Amino acid sequence: MKKPYLLPLLLLPLLADAQTASIDRVNPTNWWVGMKNPNVQLIVHGPGAGTLAYTVNYPGVKLVKTNTVDNPNYAFLDLTIAPTAKPGRVQLVGKKGSQTVTQSWEIKARDNAPKGQGVTAADFIYLAMPDRFANGDPGNDKFADMRDPNHDRANPFFRHGGDLQGAAQRIGYLKDLGVTAVWFTPVLENNQPLTNEGGTMRASYHGYGFTDQYNVDRRLGGNAAYKNYVQQAHAAGLKVVQDAVYNHVGNTHWTVQDLPMKSWLHQWPSYTNTTYRYTPITDPHAAQIDRKVTLDGWFVPFLPDLNQQNPYVANYLIENAIWCVENFGIDAWRVDTYLYNDQPFMNRCNAALLAEYPRIHIFGESAVTNAIDQAYYTRNKIDFPFKSNQPGALDFVLEGAMLAGLKESGTSGATGWDGGAQHVYQALAQDVVYQDPTKLVTFLDNHDHDRYLSVIGDDLDRYKMGMTWLLTTRGIPSMYYGTEILMKNFKNPTDAEVRKDFPGGWPDDKENKFSAAGRSAQENEAFDFVKKLATYRRDHKVLHTGKLMQYLPENGLYVYFRYDASGTVMVASNTTDKAATLPTARFSERMAGFAKAKNVLTGESLSSLTTLQLPAKTAVVLELGK
Amino acid sequence: MKKPYLLPLLLLPLLADAQTASIDRVNPTNWWVGMKNPNVQLIVHGPGAGTLAYTVNYPGVKLVKTNTVDNPNYAFLDLTIAPTAKPGRVQLVGKKGSQTVTQSWEIKARDNAPKGQGVTAADFIYLAMPDRFANGDPGNDKFADMRDPNHDRANPFFRHGGDLQGAAQRIGYLKDLGVTAVWFTPVLENNQPLTNEGGTMRASYHGYGFTDQYNVDRRLGGNAAYKNYVQQAHAAGLKVVQDAVYNHVGNTHWTVQDLPMKSWLHQWPSYTNTTYRYTPITDPHAAQIDRKVTLDGWFVPFLPDLNQQNPYVANYLIENAIWCVENFGIDAWRVDTYLYNDQPFMNRCNAALLAEYPRIHIFGESAVTNAIDQAYYTRNKIDFPFKSNQPGALDFVLEGAMLAGLKESGTSGATGWDGGAQHVYQALAQDVVYQDPTKLVTFLDNHDHDRYLSVIGDDLDRYKMGMTWLLTTRGIPSMYYGTEILMKNFKNPTDAEVRKDFPGGWPDDKENKFSAAGRSAQENEAFDFVKKLATYRRDHKVLHTGKLMQYLPENGLYVYFRYDASGTVMVASNTTDKAATLPTARFSERMAGFAKAKNVLTGESLSSLTTLQLPAKTAVVLELGK
Repeated sequence: MKKPYLLPLLLLPLLADAQTASIDRVNPTNWWVGMKNPNVQLIVHGPGAGTLAYTVNYPGVKLVKTNTVDNPNYAFLDLTIAPTAKPGRVQLVGKKGSQTVTQSWEIKARDNAPKGQGVTAADFIYLAMPDRFANGDPGNDKFADMRDPNHDRANPFFRHGGDLQGAAQRIGYLKDLGVTAVWFTPVLENNQPLTNEGGTMRASYHGYGFTDQYNVDRRLGGNAAYKNYVQQAHAAGLKVVQDAVYNHVGNTHWTVQDLPMKSWLHQWPSYTNTTYRYTPITDPHAAQIDRKVTLDGWFVPFLPDLNQQNPYVANYLIENAIWCVENFGIDAWRVDTYLYNDQPFMNRCNAALLAEYPRIHIFGESAVTNAIDQAYYTRNKIDFPFKSNQPGALDFVLEGAMLAGLKESGTSGATGWDGGAQHVYQALAQDVVYQDPTKLVTFLDNHDHDRYLSVIGDDLDRYKMGMTWLLTTRGIPSMYYGTEILMKNFKNPTDAEVRKDFPGGWPDDKENKFSAAGRSAQENEAFDFVKKLATYRRDHKVLHTGKLMQYLPENGLYVYFRYDASGTVMVASNTTDKAATLPTARFSERMAGFAKAKNVLTGESLSSLTTLQLPAKTAVVLELGK
Repeated sequence: MKKPYLLPLLLLPLLADAQTASIDRVNPTNWWVGMKNPNVQLIVHGPGAGTLAYTVNYPGVKLVKTNTVDNPNYAFLDLTIAPTAKPGRVQLVGKKGSQTVTQSWEIKARDNAPKGQGVTAADFIYLAMPDRFANGDPGNDKFADMRDPNHDRANPFFRHGGDLQGAAQRIGYLKDLGVTAVWFTPVLENNQPLTNEGGTMRASYHGYGFTDQYNVDRRLGGNAAYKNYVQQAHAAGLKVVQDAVYNHVGNTHWTVQDLPMKSWLHQWPSYTNTTYRYTPITDPHAAQIDRKVTLDGWFVPFLPDLNQQNPYVANYLIENAIWCVENFGIDAWRVDTYLYNDQPFMNRCNAALLAEYPRIHIFGESAVTNAIDQAYYTRNKIDFPFKSNQPGALDFVLEGAMLAGLKESGTSGATGWDGGAQHVYQALAQDVVYQDPTKLVTFLDNHDHDRYLSVIGDDLDRYKMGMTWLLTTRGIPSMYYGTEILMKNFKNPTDAEVRKDFPGGWPDDKENKFSAAGRSAQENEAFDFVKKLATYRRDHKVLHTGKLMQYLPENGLYVYFRYDASGTVMVASNTTDKAATLPTARFSERMAGFAKAKNVLTGESLSSLTTLQLPAKTAVVLELGK
């Protein structure tokens, strides 16, 4: 591991005095009048930018303080913007001796476009990797002036050319599927070189190594394409989730190439990777060093770990979050590697977003395997020494439980003491630790996991049962792109296996699975199944805000209800490999008063509910009627 | 299942009027002057006892109210006993027409003998089944006038004749072993007939089917032998834990044979067993019927389930608990099937015991497999709708974790991502859910589980490592009788396999493993190991109240410390099958300032702590020195 580039800090001030100062960058690139928080801290960068004495002469804009740091190429300007300030271009004037440097910086009027709408349990989120979903503009597939100038669809580790223009062309496809929100893996610039990972050269197509948080990657279409995507999505009634990364940046991020100060990053005497262990964070018996390695160790050698306890780092990240929501019109916020971040920082960041956008939803990735640790990273009911204010979280615990249950479905394990649906039942029973488990985002796989269909043994019955659980139990369901057309694979040998291009997303694709005609009969069966359930869910409030009641699974049969004043939906799953007849007397707490039902998936009408016929490996969804 | 005997209640009043009333039983059998709670509710039983009009004429004793119930054979008398009342015999006078019934009932002075001393993490508890430990009085092995008149050591399911007199003769043995507290499976009368369980006739030798809570079973020596046992134990510095059973009684319990009212028991339209499922109790999504079956379903057909929401039942059980502590001098209270009890009742019962005996420890049996459910039944840090006030609990979660870790020790699993010592480490990390995890009672097996040595594959290295964890980590350690002499077995085919007689406990035993001469070399090795550690623990406060710090296991090596101002003990476990050299720099938070150490188990002195040599499958216990 090469250490991040860092000039010997002590020499820099000597050099700086001799220099002619200049400014090459100001972040945020602009701000707005009328934000709830009138303060903004600008990072002003350029040779000797920190040696200038700054003034601002603009009505309503006040330069409260100029902060200088170890590296004279930085000044951090604390501004306040009065609600009465007029939108326009503010001149930042920096003087040193006879030199005057003037930098124009814009404050804009806020627009009325939708933003911060949030996602709720009324939504169904579709997760796509923009490089792998659809290529709308082959002209932006590669740029010779970028550190990775390659484009090669034949190489699973290189960029494939997908972009936001291509995704915009598929908004209708997602609408048709019943999706109501789109989450892209990160879109901000990853101008990283290829990295050598175990002998394989890999591109930063995944997006998790930012090099500039104020530009969407050009290969995805840049800021204009993103803004356009959001506008089109909103016009179609889709919300947009942005994937945020606070824990680290790419090792060619401009602040890493010219560090403001040593403490900008978590630096170690010798390279130290995180252990990827979350246990020391919540363990009351933990040693400090174990916590420190988990949190401050680097995620991988080419992603330097930001020190969010450094207030300049914190301000930089928080302001960028607000800038993205305001600038692009983002509705919800997914946070990468949530648990590896400094948690007090995360609370500040969440609070800042919620202050500006009270309805925005925030759900972080904390890949844990138990409810106690999962609860730690969201609003919870455990008296931890630290109190998270995160409204949501990705529900890794339920993912694990659903997959475990499905893998045992149709086997002898389905009726085991803790087997089959017991996994799901027991996981949901632990919802007592969350303030509001309906705000958790549920899923069956994602871009870092084995694909759902492969995990469950290529079994379409299990596929439907799991999809039914996902779309009818509590939480905000999300689905990884291609699951609806039965894309599959294990991560072995590499995660590229689970990140293949969506067939039909490229002009030269021979197959086009975005259309029914291009899908096989089985793919259409899956697509239609997801569509039917997602559409039903979308249109039935009881599956958004209705309460959940679940019954202890017996003999591999798992029954739960969603219910409210508007109706009752019963989901009865037979996880065994034999058809079963289920007497319903036991469920009278929820079924009393109901005499008939409609099978949501088959359209069949049931005129008696005394017993239910449950085919093997099937979840039956019944809308109960009087 | 035969329903419990119950006369048609409507007929009883008619019969009763014609009867001459009499009293054949008053419970509690006595009470004391000067209890914190001056109130006591007497159950007065006899033909027509509920048809009498009661008066009490005794200075300081006031009959506040006479309660009658469905069954006229019962009166429930609410008394208050003023602190100024003189000990003596109170006459309960019942009148009906010209008939006067007088029943003498004693109020005693409280004695100064130790009681309610509690057990803490300074203790080491030894759990024995009195029928299977030692037979001190062959004259009480069987009684022809009891429902089960049998005694047959050759039959694993029959009574074997062990008793409290025998146990009293082994107090010195336990003292020598380093034990500081004794817990017997229940000693109260189980005058049950043999029960047919799956074709096998079984005696109630386990003690969990009470027929009279005011008499210790005659076959164990009766009240006198129990009182004598406690006195001798106390004199030797041992504490005594009583095993309480509230959830159920034997089906020949006198109140079951003549039910005070239908609601005395949980009665069902047809026999309903508990599901043995605890999940519905904590599940916020649970159905009422699932909770009801778990809690109110019967444990087994011959143990009727008491309705603790019935205030007469609750008073009866609570007063018996206090009576036992006061009468026998009990120090701590183990509660059987804790989770199956009505939890508000358990809180009342715990509060009543703690009000009288503030230092008493209470630890229930809630056989769960996760920390959230375990936390529910003790004082915890989760905002459950119900708040338990139980000071302790048996730590089933840590038992499972220790056994899982030991089973993988010496295998490839020892270094697995979640394998080996990770089980233990991760379980302890969840201590954040308990108000005070040091009050949990830890164990490696018990009378209902496979025996420890068998679970870990008859491996003496694992045995020592697990015993080291038990005796050096947080909590109040307990050990099942015979573990120290390597008694083993699985419950398969029956639990009698893990409840064998302690060799040497019977006069005619050929072997006597109570003495070193009677034990094999390996048995002495185990005994001496337990003794050495237990004695060290007993004599070192740091292992009682010192804090725990544990480090993330790496490469199958698990290191933790107990530390306080008095010293630091380091426990370094190598769970792999190869000797390892452990650099200690990582542990500087705890090792800084220490330069040498004493190996507690070998006596060896270490003059350098830079690296430690850890033999395969071994836990090294080091007392650090400056």
